[in-house]
Amino acid sequence: MPRVVVDVMLKPEILDPQGQAVANALPRMGVSDVSAVRIGRRIEIEFTGEPDLERAREIADKLLANPVIEDFTVRLVKADEPTEAHS
Amino acid sequence: MPRVVVDVMLKPEILDPQGQAVANALPRMGVSDVSAVRIGRRIEIEFTGEPDLERAREIADKLLANPVIEDFTVRLVKADEPTEAHS
Repeated sequence: MPRVVVDVMLKPEILDPQGQAVANALPRMGVSDVSAVRIGRRIEIEFTGEPDLERAREIADKLLANPVIEDFTVRLVKADEPTEAHS
Repeated sequence: MPRVVVDVMLKPEILDPQGQAVANALPRMGVSDVSAVRIGRRIEIEFTGEPDLERAREIADKLLANPVIEDFTVRLVKADEPTEAHS
């Protein structure tokens, strides 16, 4: 069953200390070609029936994102989206 | 410039209390057709040069995901991916 994915990211003008902490750690790993890292939330919503993008947008607006500092996007993800899972 | 997005989610067998808290709050919003909510992290990595998926996978493996409880996927996102930003 397809799911709705809500991606919540800090607005570009908002400082992202977590992302900067990761970016600062990269040189120690020998990684020098990364210019920026930003960290946000990915929320997967499974509906009992057909996935409802409008409903997901309403949920994101009210529960998942802080409109003052965050933007969010809503999209439909097919159940078999290649999740190149690595563990 | 295209970016690499790393999506980190808890493995399916791992309990997701945050996701359940959101799912439990939905009926109060009048939402009754959601069967599950799972919350993970979305990390956007910007490279100075060409985006490097292999490098991003290495970063995810070492810094971004806990292989014991999390899976991650790595994908290239074009700069102009429609970010239906809502704020």
